[in-house]
Amino acid sequence: MNRRSAALALVHDPVLDRRGDVVTSAVTNLDLHDIARTSRTYGLKSFYVVTPLQEQRKLVERILGHWEGYGRTYNPIRSEALQMVRTVDSLDEAISHRRKEAGEDPLPVLTGAGRKDGISFGQCRSLSNEYPLLLVFGTGWGLAPSVFERGWPVLEPVKGAGDYNHLPVRAAAAIVLDRLFGRD
Amino acid sequence: MNRRSAALALVHDPVLDRRGDVVTSAVTNLDLHDIARTSRTYGLKSFYVVTPLQEQRKLVERILGHWEGYGRTYNPIRSEALQMVRTVDSLDEAISHRRKEAGEDPLPVLTGAGRKDGISFGQCRSLSNEYPLLLVFGTGWGLAPSVFERGWPVLEPVKGAGDYNHLPVRAAAAIVLDRLFGRD
Repeated sequence: MNRRSAALALVHDPVLDRRGDVVTSAVTNLDLHDIARTSRTYGLKSFYVVTPLQEQRKLVERILGHWEGYGRTYNPIRSEALQMVRTVDSLDEAISHRRKEAGEDPLPVLTGAGRKDGISFGQCRSLSNEYPLLLVFGTGWGLAPSVFERGWPVLEPVKGAGDYNHLPVRAAAAIVLDRLFGRD
Repeated sequence: MNRRSAALALVHDPVLDRRGDVVTSAVTNLDLHDIARTSRTYGLKSFYVVTPLQEQRKLVERILGHWEGYGRTYNPIRSEALQMVRTVDSLDEAISHRRKEAGEDPLPVLTGAGRKDGISFGQCRSLSNEYPLLLVFGTGWGLAPSVFERGWPVLEPVKGAGDYNHLPVRAAAAIVLDRLFGRD
């Protein structure tokens, strides 16, 4: 495997709600657990939980603290996965942490079910050999337009078998990681 | 696409707990939502929630009822996915329903992270052209040995990038459906 180290960011702000308004979504416990276990299974280095709300970051730290303490004895497998979670207040802080971790500039790659202008999974795999990727997923109804305006590559959406295409972010992240890194 | 119709069963009994004991696990609301949306995205016909506990089946029916009523107006996308959920008291009842739905005998294919004797994803894709598949996932720590003793084919486990291989069932189901049906 000659790919560079990769990481994942789950963004809670700025994202869209069901009416298309730009909002801050709430962190959910299950996103942390599911995406941490999936990220760990596919060998990612860090899983960033992005929210500008200090109270929400504290909540995440409290959950992580539980799994450092009692939870570690109770379920070491889950604890191991949660060790890669980092709470950050913005995507820029995630990029900055990723830069220090990888020793060079990371390349953010955005995801979104409604995008039509994306690079293919094959192209993204090639990029993962050249750059330390930071795969960016939005919660709620997806990343806000301002994130897409930053000029980073966008990955083609995961398509199913018909017109219905409403995967939970937990499932989309699992499928994207498997398509990119699951067949080495 | 010349594959036959397929379905998925999420089994809550008999499954293993973390100590390896055979138990009945609890139905979780999020499994219903996530796996229904993923199943709908990949064009499955039915998603069976298998539990012998009548109270648990009633709970599921109550959740489904909500999404038939108010929830349908609030979030028609989610409601559409949940329409394919069927509550059954055993895997045999799921097979029986599937037989009526498909008009012929379905072929159950079992999944499990710890299996070493499985058919490949390619072989399973070939089978899906010959038989209406019923993909069977266990909750908790996986399907109990008695299910594997029934002689149905077992699918090879999803492997990640290393030794850590502890995907949530929601993620495993998404990856399996994508590998089998996501590249038609």
